[in-house]
Amino acid sequence: MSTYVKKLVKQAKAASYKLANLTTTQKNKALESMAKSLMDNRKAILKENKKDIEKAIAGKLKSSFIERLSLDDEKLKSMSVSLEEIAKLDDPVGKLISTSIRPNGIELKKVRVPIGVILIVYEARPNVTSDCSGLLFKTSNVGILRGGKNSFYSNKIIGRTLTKALKLSGIDFDAFFIVENTERKIVDELLKQNEYIDLVIPRGGETLIRKVVKSSYIPVIKHYKGICHVYVDKDADLEKALKICVNAKVQRPSVCNALETILIHQDVAKEFLPHLKQEFDKYSVQIKAGQKAQKFLKSAKKATQKDWSTEYLDLIVSIKIVKDLKEAIEHINFYGSHHTDAIVTENAARADKFVNTVDSACCFANISTRFSDGYQFGLGAEIGISTDKLHARGPMGLEELTIYKWIAKGNGQLRT
Amino acid sequence: MSTYVKKLVKQAKAASYKLANLTTTQKNKALESMAKSLMDNRKAILKENKKDIEKAIAGKLKSSFIERLSLDDEKLKSMSVSLEEIAKLDDPVGKLISTSIRPNGIELKKVRVPIGVILIVYEARPNVTSDCSGLLFKTSNVGILRGGKNSFYSNKIIGRTLTKALKLSGIDFDAFFIVENTERKIVDELLKQNEYIDLVIPRGGETLIRKVVKSSYIPVIKHYKGICHVYVDKDADLEKALKICVNAKVQRPSVCNALETILIHQDVAKEFLPHLKQEFDKYSVQIKAGQKAQKFLKSAKKATQKDWSTEYLDLIVSIKIVKDLKEAIEHINFYGSHHTDAIVTENAARADKFVNTVDSACCFANISTRFSDGYQFGLGAEIGISTDKLHARGPMGLEELTIYKWIAKGNGQLRT
Repeated sequence: MSTYVKKLVKQAKAASYKLANLTTTQKNKALESMAKSLMDNRKAILKENKKDIEKAIAGKLKSSFIERLSLDDEKLKSMSVSLEEIAKLDDPVGKLISTSIRPNGIELKKVRVPIGVILIVYEARPNVTSDCSGLLFKTSNVGILRGGKNSFYSNKIIGRTLTKALKLSGIDFDAFFIVENTERKIVDELLKQNEYIDLVIPRGGETLIRKVVKSSYIPVIKHYKGICHVYVDKDADLEKALKICVNAKVQRPSVCNALETILIHQDVAKEFLPHLKQEFDKYSVQIKAGQKAQKFLKSAKKATQKDWSTEYLDLIVSIKIVKDLKEAIEHINFYGSHHTDAIVTENAARADKFVNTVDSACCFANISTRFSDGYQFGLGAEIGISTDKLHARGPMGLEELTIYKWIAKGNGQLRT
Repeated sequence: MSTYVKKLVKQAKAASYKLANLTTTQKNKALESMAKSLMDNRKAILKENKKDIEKAIAGKLKSSFIERLSLDDEKLKSMSVSLEEIAKLDDPVGKLISTSIRPNGIELKKVRVPIGVILIVYEARPNVTSDCSGLLFKTSNVGILRGGKNSFYSNKIIGRTLTKALKLSGIDFDAFFIVENTERKIVDELLKQNEYIDLVIPRGGETLIRKVVKSSYIPVIKHYKGICHVYVDKDADLEKALKICVNAKVQRPSVCNALETILIHQDVAKEFLPHLKQEFDKYSVQIKAGQKAQKFLKSAKKATQKDWSTEYLDLIVSIKIVKDLKEAIEHINFYGSHHTDAIVTENAARADKFVNTVDSACCFANISTRFSDGYQFGLGAEIGISTDKLHARGPMGLEELTIYKWIAKGNGQLRT
């Protein structure tokens, strides 16, 4: 292990014990100071961000990549507002989950506590640096934030600005750490520090996340991708179905809860598909049709096997006709990514069957898949979405950044 | 991937969707049938177990190992009773965790569901085969159980007996799988099947668990060891402290919640240690004393640095004198295993400081560390203990074998 990593993780662990002792008031005051600091240091931050942008342009990186990397007054303002909003959220730390008096008189409590030290591995999105610093700090977790090398200058200045604000608010230790060394081996080393780091949350593309999972000795919470489905049942209100499909596909196609595959019951395909085609044409959505669906969508491209497990993140949709609800559920459980899937039906029993049997984090009836989101669920800010089956599933808010401890008090009870 | 593993994990995943549809009544009926089958097939099971024992004796394995491997009428009866008790426990699957109506009218529910497919990797303890089959089945999780090669015959017959009982109770698919291939590479392959297996719980020694963590792509819940402390504060009721230390150390020294290190406040060491020594002598407990403690424990061996992080699992205890509560907490957080630690004090503020600041799954005041146990906490049967900071911490009962899904129903809501 390099001296750099060794020092970093030890410092982070030590800080986690100090951080656990801060009051909610102290944390909120610091968050407000952090929010203000982003606005106060706007010019310097944008100047450093420009260095990253220029390097990215010179390196001929994709325009969508540069778009995500770029900051401006408006984006900085929104980062600042996010920190203010985190300050306003309820603090889950210290909350009592359950309490009981055991038959032998022992008083047993289950209480929410921070997880400890959390490593965030992310790509070139400077807003993640401030969002995650804020969310982890609010939940008394020490963050080790390691962003991509293409946002080196931006992350560095944001990190230093926030750290300074923390000090100004009266916190006398570093409560989050921006990894300024962007060598690949540093991440690999960090991922082996299971004695010091309690959780890894990778945020980025599937390749990044798979790399993290394969090298990590530390538990990872993640979602690889969002292959979200809408199943239009034979008892669907077709007008509703049409609006839901269009909203789920076009309202923001680049995000993980956008629709990728529509499954349609064979009995309503003939009536529904021409209307759907007409709507999708308005938004220039390209359709890839399964074998049976091609009959009703003559001009559509043919969907290959690969399409059923592809996350387009673009104005492309695949469409398949299914025999019944059972086939729809089997398709979703087999090809899907266990993220968010919806049924459109007026038949309550079939809606229940769908939401109970589809093995996804979010199972919906008669609403757009786009609602799978921390804010929409009322969780406040979201640290990420999990398609795992452990600890947290679906949108993760502040509570999902905590764990519990058992506290038991007695009067000399012994085990016999 | 070998054909064997490929077939196994696909079958397990498919079974998990069927299992999720069973009712609690169906599951309880099957569990009772499983319990009965162990008694009905007593002779055959003991005969196969004898083969394992004879091999172990011929292989000159340790007597404690053979003890754990050996079954008799009484142990079989207790395995059978465990299954009956699991049948009687509340089924957490399907329980509503929370519900809300969002401002846009969407009805949102968080509901408990099974985790899916769970791999148990364990050593030569045939009772784990039936206990884990029962606990996983009750929570609608498909178990893949891979025991040590030294219990090959025992696990095989127990697995087959239970599977047959399942069929007899009317379940027409395999709901747990005993891995009868005991080659090492099979475990390695299973640990990479993160597309099919959702969780790994290793049960056994630290070496086994470390191996699992390092090779697994699947989330692991575990505890490496239990280095449990009792801190005797300056305001302790010393009589209470004496009884707690003795109970925690000698009542069952071979288990993970037994006491390994006693920390004593410097102000009470002189009075307390001679009494403690006298009590420990009665039980032939060997004392390893830190530098300052040696003054009061002339005949004790000297504790080395290594002793503070050693789990003796035997009638050995290490003792250290500390300056104050702060030093005690720092010692525990640094050398401990974050399992179970207790303070003895009549000072409520100091008890609170201890339970809030010690970073362990179970933080106790004025009771024996031996209470860190699923039954004692009222969780019913225990699948294991976690010192992780994710999903579950401390004793894990049935609820900890579940996760949740988000179910949302609406009437055509769209995201704007």
